[in-house]
Amino acid sequence: MSAKTAEQLLQEASAWWTTEIIDIHPGKIGIRGYPIQDLIGTIRFPEMIWLMLRGELPSQAQAALLEAALVASVDHGPQAPSIAISRMAVTCGLPLNGAMASAINALDDVHGGAGQQCMEICQRIAAMTESGTGLAEAVDAALDAYVAEHGKIIPGFGHRFHPTDPRTPKLLQLVEEACNSGAVGGHYARIGRSVEEALARRTGKRIPMNIDGATAVIFSELGFAAELGRGLFILSRAVGILAHAWEQKTQGGRIKGPMPPAVPYTYTGEAERKLKPGGPGTA
Amino acid sequence: MSAKTAEQLLQEASAWWTTEIIDIHPGKIGIRGYPIQDLIGTIRFPEMIWLMLRGELPSQAQAALLEAALVASVDHGPQAPSIAISRMAVTCGLPLNGAMASAINALDDVHGGAGQQCMEICQRIAAMTESGTGLAEAVDAALDAYVAEHGKIIPGFGHRFHPTDPRTPKLLQLVEEACNSGAVGGHYARIGRSVEEALARRTGKRIPMNIDGATAVIFSELGFAAELGRGLFILSRAVGILAHAWEQKTQGGRIKGPMPPAVPYTYTGEAERKLKPGGPGTA
Amino acid sequence: MSAKTAEQLLQEASAWWTTEIIDIHPGKIGIRGYPIQDLIGTIRFPEMIWLMLRGELPSQAQAALLEAALVASVDHGPQAPSIAISRMAVTCGLPLNGAMASAINALDDVHGGAGQQCMEICQRIAAMTESGTGLAEAVDAALDAYVAEHGKIIPGFGHRFHPTDPRTPKLLQLVEEACNSGAVGGHYARIGRSVEEALARRTGKRIPMNIDGATAVIFSELGFAAELGRGLFILSRAVGILAHAWEQKTQGGRIKGPMPPAVPYTYTGEAERKLKPGGPGTA
Amino acid sequence: MSAKTAEQLLQEASAWWTTEIIDIHPGKIGIRGYPIQDLIGTIRFPEMIWLMLRGELPSQAQAALLEAALVASVDHGPQAPSIAISRMAVTCGLPLNGAMASAINALDDVHGGAGQQCMEICQRIAAMTESGTGLAEAVDAALDAYVAEHGKIIPGFGHRFHPTDPRTPKLLQLVEEACNSGAVGGHYARIGRSVEEALARRTGKRIPMNIDGATAVIFSELGFAAELGRGLFILSRAVGILAHAWEQKTQGGRIKGPMPPAVPYTYTGEAERKLKPGGPGTA
Repeated sequence: MSAKTAEQLLQEASAWWTTEIIDIHPGKIGIRGYPIQDLIGTIRFPEMIWLMLRGELPSQAQAALLEAALVASVDHGPQAPSIAISRMAVTCGLPLNGAMASAINALDDVHGGAGQQCMEICQRIAAMTESGTGLAEAVDAALDAYVAEHGKIIPGFGHRFHPTDPRTPKLLQLVEEACNSGAVGGHYARIGRSVEEALARRTGKRIPMNIDGATAVIFSELGFAAELGRGLFILSRAVGILAHAWEQKTQGGRIKGPMPPAVPYTYTGEAERKLKPGGPGTA
Repeated sequence: MSAKTAEQLLQEASAWWTTEIIDIHPGKIGIRGYPIQDLIGTIRFPEMIWLMLRGELPSQAQAALLEAALVASVDHGPQAPSIAISRMAVTCGLPLNGAMASAINALDDVHGGAGQQCMEICQRIAAMTESGTGLAEAVDAALDAYVAEHGKIIPGFGHRFHPTDPRTPKLLQLVEEACNSGAVGGHYARIGRSVEEALARRTGKRIPMNIDGATAVIFSELGFAAELGRGLFILSRAVGILAHAWEQKTQGGRIKGPMPPAVPYTYTGEAERKLKPGGPGTA
Repeated sequence: MSAKTAEQLLQEASAWWTTEIIDIHPGKIGIRGYPIQDLIGTIRFPEMIWLMLRGELPSQAQAALLEAALVASVDHGPQAPSIAISRMAVTCGLPLNGAMASAINALDDVHGGAGQQCMEICQRIAAMTESGTGLAEAVDAALDAYVAEHGKIIPGFGHRFHPTDPRTPKLLQLVEEACNSGAVGGHYARIGRSVEEALARRTGKRIPMNIDGATAVIFSELGFAAELGRGLFILSRAVGILAHAWEQKTQGGRIKGPMPPAVPYTYTGEAERKLKPGGPGTA
Repeated sequence: MSAKTAEQLLQEASAWWTTEIIDIHPGKIGIRGYPIQDLIGTIRFPEMIWLMLRGELPSQAQAALLEAALVASVDHGPQAPSIAISRMAVTCGLPLNGAMASAINALDDVHGGAGQQCMEICQRIAAMTESGTGLAEAVDAALDAYVAEHGKIIPGFGHRFHPTDPRTPKLLQLVEEACNSGAVGGHYARIGRSVEEALARRTGKRIPMNIDGATAVIFSELGFAAELGRGLFILSRAVGILAHAWEQKTQGGRIKGPMPPAVPYTYTGEAERKLKPGGPGTA
């Protein structure tokens, strides 16, 4: 450690954080090489999202498909834990950044990860078909593997509330149009339909693609890594989280718990008891 | 409490969370009254943001101005604490939602609040001019009041790094075009310029509007509440936070502190000492 | 910038983070000057908390009083937003660190700040009495000032749920014993009682000190800064937040919202409507 | 949904959140059955932590061992990402709760999970020995399995900074004393030593137990679930996070990034380029 020169240590410090995303100098900001002033007023917000995440700009058809997915996922109401947390946080005195942070934190594996998990399944199927396995066979293998590891709920399919998720048919129609125009290849749309068919065959009932499945198809068609599926969902749901935080601010309310105080929770623990005479320690 | 009937308690529970934003029933999702499937593929993402926050759709010119502001603020590099936190969080094992939450949380009064604070100043000036005070006089009164309460740094003006912020001229040009076309009124653009002039007069040097000032003008022209200025900034910066978190994931790295371990921090505390013989308690 | 030598830049980097708390070298960890191995097994956890925050070790009587306050505040049940957020977060898939973070974030001004605010009031009263103002007069002046700025709810006094907070009498008894033994001075205990009397006189009814008031008295007697009152409360409540997160994990549950899905929230927004024919833009 | 009566729905609402930890009624707070006023001033803070997490009070020897582990882990300096995040957050304007939340969030699998992971390994070994496998054999099997799944770094052993972690010998000595007095069984201490021996045998060099390993032994000896190992570590490290947040507040500083602005980060992306004439869309 002490043997290093100041130049070497400084070099090490400068190499500690390294990025291909942004280059900043006094009076200059370059995003992926483009001067920021060339982008402002010229490219659309979804194009900027794509540029930041992927390094290049999308085609207009690609951007439109991404935009549809971002529009579709903004909100699912105050019963969703993320939205409820956002609203409760505001009544605790948090500013909008704090409320949004607490809520976005909750978009984890179970609440915000279904799209990513569905993309992982679909991309595993795609890898198998690229190696020559037939689609139906690949779907069955991927579903068997998923069920064996995670249980029978397949992320992206079925909804505990909506018999048919109203967002899915419209999103899939846009995918189909993009396929027809050649904007995307359509392989993941086929995979999605094939999973739907396999689930119907296996369970004897229709388990339709939900919003997570439809956006997983879109993000996969657009070439996003599975993990970014979660990230894109968060960018979209952040809008609903902000809108509900703001609405709660305008409504007021202080330290609002999940239910009104008059509706009790259930206590199932020990009945009232006394500390033992000899003090808490028993030995 | 016990005097209430089950119907009354249930009614109280149902009224506990109330929203004008979203209406959900099995198979139906309405956003501000619009069926979600009518919005997907039809409206743009910035229009959806506006609809969620304001309750009505913007004009295309309004949406374009909002979009330019959203595009402009996505990133300011890994030296910004929010971006650094996002990257560090990833090296601690956090998924994207957790990294984004930790980072967004830091967009508080000092790091993410300048736009909101600038909007508050501008809206106070606007209120004065609406009551008949002349613009220059209102600006002076607002600046005096702000300086007296918060010190001489006026949020939205000047930059410790950029002599001229490259994002500002382009944003102000777009505002001017929107004024000329009648899309916005131009009152806040005039206020912004007037503050700039007052600061030059007061300090003897040019303290140009920065990105926070330019977006404060835009958001105010568009009729957003000051607090939502922070919210909109967060929606934009969330893109950079996500992009850097993702880049860090692809780079790898484990438990990365702010600087490489070889660059030491400074310890200024007590020299090594012994616990006193009688035990830690002195009484 | 370029004029600086590598030595100067490295020096700047090393001075960027500076602390009196901890000194670390290979094989050595010093806490406030004490080798860590001298502290482990020797000092108690509340003594360590005090040492970390204050730089010196407390007397045993001081540590005991701090410990009583830490024991008293660990939990107030799943209706508290922080506890509810912790439990909801777990059902979204968050690990314990994430659930605790989301919950602790909510201990802001309104939900976690009452103790700090009460300390600020008490310390303002103490400052006045030190300048020669009589206690009753100082209390009245401080209450008048607080009510004028923040409204009539005085933090630390009264409880919307408990007619008498069961934690307060025991804590105040411990303060009294510490006063009698000379461990603390008793000035803040007198201030607390005096505020209680003033509130009774002003409102015509008893508004007893609550847990925030009692711990504010203790922390002030012990010489903590008001802001650390919030910090100490968080260290205590973190225990309840962890216990509830863990209990929720053992109970299971997926994506639990605030109320069961069968209990609806209230929608008060626009009735279903159609997008206007000419597209969303109206201009 | 509509078929349920108000009584049924209310019953469902009351059963939605259920706890064995705390029972609250006006004027009464019971923790695991004990009236809170019986605990305040009577039990120690680590005893309260144990009671909250486990449901019963520990013996004094058990509490002392837990306390030693809590004392040992409070801080590892501002180079640790969690501490750095806490300090950076404060310079962004966050209050102590927000700084602590952002920092605690980072105590995830990689930065805060080593103790939990080490407990999982040790408890797997314990389960094997309970089924009759010899200790050395069980250790080898567990290490092989861990390495196969996660790679060769065994959590709880070795330290990239300390040749010998100064906290470990003292903690292990306390475990030994507790074994000798019969307070704990000593099985996990034997497992820990046996892993250390196996690693020396496998690698040809000493890879001593670190703080995560030593506390994993202690928490396992005390019967805590592995996941609570992370929770207990967080309760301890929260003290350091708070102390550094508070120190940073007293130092001041605004929007401090990881390194001083004069020390640049490295940009490795595209050179400056122009948007293509035909607009961003290429199709």
